[in-house]
Amino acid sequence: MRNSSYRFIKAYALYTTDYYTQSMGLILVYTGDGKGKTTAALGLVLRAYGHGLRSIVAHVMKTLIYRGQWVGEYSALLKMSDLVEVYYMSEEALRTPRDVFNKAIERSIMIKPFLLVLDEVNNAVNGGLMTSREVIDGLRKLPNEVNVVLTGRNAPSEFLELADLVTEFKPVKHYYDKGIVGVMGLEW
Amino acid sequence: MRNSSYRFIKAYALYTTDYYTQSMGLILVYTGDGKGKTTAALGLVLRAYGHGLRSIVAHVMKTLIYRGQWVGEYSALLKMSDLVEVYYMSEEALRTPRDVFNKAIERSIMIKPFLLVLDEVNNAVNGGLMTSREVIDGLRKLPNEVNVVLTGRNAPSEFLELADLVTEFKPVKHYYDKGIVGVMGLEW
Repeated sequence: MRNSSYRFIKAYALYTTDYYTQSMGLILVYTGDGKGKTTAALGLVLRAYGHGLRSIVAHVMKTLIYRGQWVGEYSALLKMSDLVEVYYMSEEALRTPRDVFNKAIERSIMIKPFLLVLDEVNNAVNGGLMTSREVIDGLRKLPNEVNVVLTGRNAPSEFLELADLVTEFKPVKHYYDKGIVGVMGLEW
Repeated sequence: MRNSSYRFIKAYALYTTDYYTQSMGLILVYTGDGKGKTTAALGLVLRAYGHGLRSIVAHVMKTLIYRGQWVGEYSALLKMSDLVEVYYMSEEALRTPRDVFNKAIERSIMIKPFLLVLDEVNNAVNGGLMTSREVIDGLRKLPNEVNVVLTGRNAPSEFLELADLVTEFKPVKHYYDKGIVGVMGLEW
């Protein structure tokens, strides 16, 4: 939650409805070393889409071509382009993680999506490509109704503190360990 | 992995390709108390769809109407019905978790999807509505190319043993604890 007046509105809503069903600017963090973080964020996009709600997906650390073809999620999200916008890195256009992030924040301020996915933003901070401060400053600019998902390993402690929900994806067993390093349709 | 001859084929494939990009009958388990298990399974469906690959989604413990309307994922998956089949419980039609499971296995044998999601099947076993033995027997009947995701809290140890990948979704922080018990678009 991003500001105290909004916190009041949310607290009030909890007393007036049994299930609070409206968008409320929640911050979700999907972190940990296990498989499924980006995938779960994509599942949220799917679910929101089913309700006719808008999403913006910002892949701050990924290009959308892998092994000569679009990654699966991009091809799929293109078919939802009536409600979903996707931003991504691009070497040619010199789009850095910061550029992608800023674009996503700017568009979110403009179109007020239900959901903003900042995919791999935790890694961008860990890798020194962005600071947690500038991410948080960006989040504070968002309209109150935008729910945000931050994904990536080792989420900075500032994000954990700010978050309304944190799930750690803990790898108990991974097929990487058997030498299976990538499966099209499951990994990309 | 479901049988030893297939294990051999997979081992061979690992020596002949750098990235094994074909369907290989992997078993993924998404378990733990954290948010995102079903959501991540849905993200896999989205990704597979983007590659033009078929999925079957069996919600063995859920009906698809919630608070008078379809859950978001169902509305969204309907738009992908060229490649995605969804099965679910229904009180009227007396469809139990076992019925939904059996239907999903039967259809998977027939159409050989890339991905079979057995959503909440772990809970069906924990709740005594199915046995882990009959789930595993069903999995063994599947064509080798079908990848399977089993979701739900407290996955039975037999499933963990059989799995190629296990991610535990660990709740570090949850907005339930603040009294927010359900958000449309994020939860359903």
